[in-house]
Amino acid sequence: MKKIFLTGAGLSASTLIKYLLDNSEKYDWRIRIGDVSVDTVRQKINGHKNAEAVKFDIFNEAQRDEEIKNADIVISMLPARMHHLTASSCIKYKKNMVTASYVSEELKAVKDDVEKSGILILNEIGVDPGIDHMSAMKIIDGIKEKGGKITAFRSYTGGLIAPKHDNNPWNYKFTWNPRNVIVAGQGPAAKIIVNGKYKYIPYHQLFKRVTATEVEGYGEFEVYPNRDSLKYRKSYGLEDIPTMVRGTMRRPGFCKAWNVFVQLGATDDTYTLENSENMTYRDFINTFLRYDPNASVEKKLAEYLQIDEDSSTMYKLRWTGIFGNERIGLKNASPAKILQKLLEDKWRFEEDDRDMLVMQHKFEYELNGVKKEIKSSMVIEGKDHTHTAMSATVGLPVGIAVKMILNKKINDKGILIPIKKNIYEPILEELKDYGIEFNEEERDI
Amino acid sequence: MKKIFLTGAGLSASTLIKYLLDNSEKYDWRIRIGDVSVDTVRQKINGHKNAEAVKFDIFNEAQRDEEIKNADIVISMLPARMHHLTASSCIKYKKNMVTASYVSEELKAVKDDVEKSGILILNEIGVDPGIDHMSAMKIIDGIKEKGGKITAFRSYTGGLIAPKHDNNPWNYKFTWNPRNVIVAGQGPAAKIIVNGKYKYIPYHQLFKRVTATEVEGYGEFEVYPNRDSLKYRKSYGLEDIPTMVRGTMRRPGFCKAWNVFVQLGATDDTYTLENSENMTYRDFINTFLRYDPNASVEKKLAEYLQIDEDSSTMYKLRWTGIFGNERIGLKNASPAKILQKLLEDKWRFEEDDRDMLVMQHKFEYELNGVKKEIKSSMVIEGKDHTHTAMSATVGLPVGIAVKMILNKKINDKGILIPIKKNIYEPILEELKDYGIEFNEEERDI
Repeated sequence: MKKIFLTGAGLSASTLIKYLLDNSEKYDWRIRIGDVSVDTVRQKINGHKNAEAVKFDIFNEAQRDEEIKNADIVISMLPARMHHLTASSCIKYKKNMVTASYVSEELKAVKDDVEKSGILILNEIGVDPGIDHMSAMKIIDGIKEKGGKITAFRSYTGGLIAPKHDNNPWNYKFTWNPRNVIVAGQGPAAKIIVNGKYKYIPYHQLFKRVTATEVEGYGEFEVYPNRDSLKYRKSYGLEDIPTMVRGTMRRPGFCKAWNVFVQLGATDDTYTLENSENMTYRDFINTFLRYDPNASVEKKLAEYLQIDEDSSTMYKLRWTGIFGNERIGLKNASPAKILQKLLEDKWRFEEDDRDMLVMQHKFEYELNGVKKEIKSSMVIEGKDHTHTAMSATVGLPVGIAVKMILNKKINDKGILIPIKKNIYEPILEELKDYGIEFNEEERDI
Repeated sequence: MKKIFLTGAGLSASTLIKYLLDNSEKYDWRIRIGDVSVDTVRQKINGHKNAEAVKFDIFNEAQRDEEIKNADIVISMLPARMHHLTASSCIKYKKNMVTASYVSEELKAVKDDVEKSGILILNEIGVDPGIDHMSAMKIIDGIKEKGGKITAFRSYTGGLIAPKHDNNPWNYKFTWNPRNVIVAGQGPAAKIIVNGKYKYIPYHQLFKRVTATEVEGYGEFEVYPNRDSLKYRKSYGLEDIPTMVRGTMRRPGFCKAWNVFVQLGATDDTYTLENSENMTYRDFINTFLRYDPNASVEKKLAEYLQIDEDSSTMYKLRWTGIFGNERIGLKNASPAKILQKLLEDKWRFEEDDRDMLVMQHKFEYELNGVKKEIKSSMVIEGKDHTHTAMSATVGLPVGIAVKMILNKKINDKGILIPIKKNIYEPILEELKDYGIEFNEEERDI
């Protein structure tokens, strides 16, 4: 019998929990799931005999130590900033640990302790980061094994609404954390490399620097660059690659309209607006425009940002209700908070909606003097409102990795991300059983 | 005999030191001037018998205590963040202190100690802040005494190049700290109020939200809003004023061209560019533009930001050398640092150049049912490269205040700024002797 301890039973853990429960009989697993909300856990395990719900506080060291000491493996689905707490107990009791999050600075800081204790902390094994690493490394290793030289790598991901439920002019709904969407791209300039030239794109230009791409069977998407395009050059063994871009996918037209909010300053989360509780959404937008009692808010905005009043961008804006006289009703709110409140209502992921996760890699490489292109795309739609595409793509790789570690198919040690063949190959293989499969097209260019 | 201790003998202290020396015989003053560079001080006192140069380290508590204990009054012309150190010794030995800087948070924190020790720490008595407070308060108090009601207050300041030496297409030179000019306006959105409506302007729009103004005898200027327009509403007794804007003055066309750097991201000081030491200025600008080997950098920039290639904005840009093939030669440099290096060369304040300080207040008020406007403007040009307009307008109010405190014409206590009549009136009066005088025009509107 193997004991699994999972902390954090939020949105992204639904499919992971289902995977663990479904496999628990076959592999003789006992699963304890700790969360601040024990009801959330109970709902998800639904009386399954191999699982137990625990009210769990990660900041309670004694409880944390006790749970981890008794486990064979630990999964942390809490926010990334809390992983180092879980890790500290895993190091103490020599337990392997798996997370779907980026390797935090706090985690990097205990690298030596992890190595000394001889455990594995496997991170970034969700979707993005996770499936992106694994599917990219499969192609990269494949090209290298043939003796090819990779000259360009573009990698795009989007968490979107499935086509059948895509029924608003933005072609977008909040299938994931709304706040992350509102502040996406803020911070230092995005950095990409194109034909050996570094390119820096500040936040206020990000949604103008869009490229188009096509996904077989799903039509056209647009992509804006992520801030961290070059972060994995070294991990992927692509130190000298002339072109590398990572980006976020939206449906065409989204970025042009979103850019209006960016240009106005309506996505700013660094200060609060005077008297926000008594404002209407129309007042809110007007606060970013010059004073002129003789011009409508719509007209002032269109003039300020040089948009046609009859454009689809203005239609998208009007559709949100941003020009409406509804009261916001938020005290001491930042622009970002107000915008989030408006859009949470309009971009609501309804109970009968289904989400969609799209990922695409584009490689260019040279082999025997011939230039070739590989386009590898994956689309998966959600099963229902709980077992979403996002939850599946985040949770299944975690679950499979946990199984492989328990079954000693993964015996690596240290703080790792899934870029090694012995890890990514069987995981990608099993993901196919769940419909998570890349469609690869190759052509000479 | 009175002993004055002055710390900080940098650029802004030149005219102040001259004022103190010139008055030292009449009032029997002995002036000790402490600076990290004792040579800088010696140059400025030039063997004057009433002055002494001391090598001084503000972080050396024993030395600080010793100097301040022996003084009758202390002037701090060091960077604002160091004033609380000076203040701590002034509190200990019950010595009055004068600074030209904003009241820092550290200084506010010792308010109670200052009051208990019964001393005066008079701050913000340079030009901006300083002369702006005093000249504005004179008009505000005047209108209120007549029974008028102030409905609008706009206040503008610019440190510029004198017309005779204004010989480049930007009509601008670095007569003051270049770095402050490069990063001006960065941070949270600027906040103004217009006819009772708050308006917020993010950095990337600041240089588009320009208004024009005229100064008698000096022609037209343009003004962009400062970040802190509403900071002094309460201090000025204008809590309910419907319109209040503070701004920075430039010559027409400056902001439109500067905005190009802002839009590109070339003023960003938060990250460093890869391989900056081997870049040319042309590479630098190209790094913010899309990759296209078939279009010139000039063409790409003009298209990206929708500027005519034959516009005066493009002329200003070409004139800086930003499209040139000169190597930058700075390692690990931020965009802001590179831009500063280029412009320090081009906007150099030459030895025979003279600077100019412009200040203008515009008030609207109602009196007996009549709406009136007061426009109050001051322009002063520098005497020479050392005794600049900036140095005079910063240093003379400090010197006069010191004299008044020593002569017991100012007997106030606590942490103050010069908004009280007994302080601003005699100082403004004496400033006239030095050519610092406001020209007031009033008209019905």
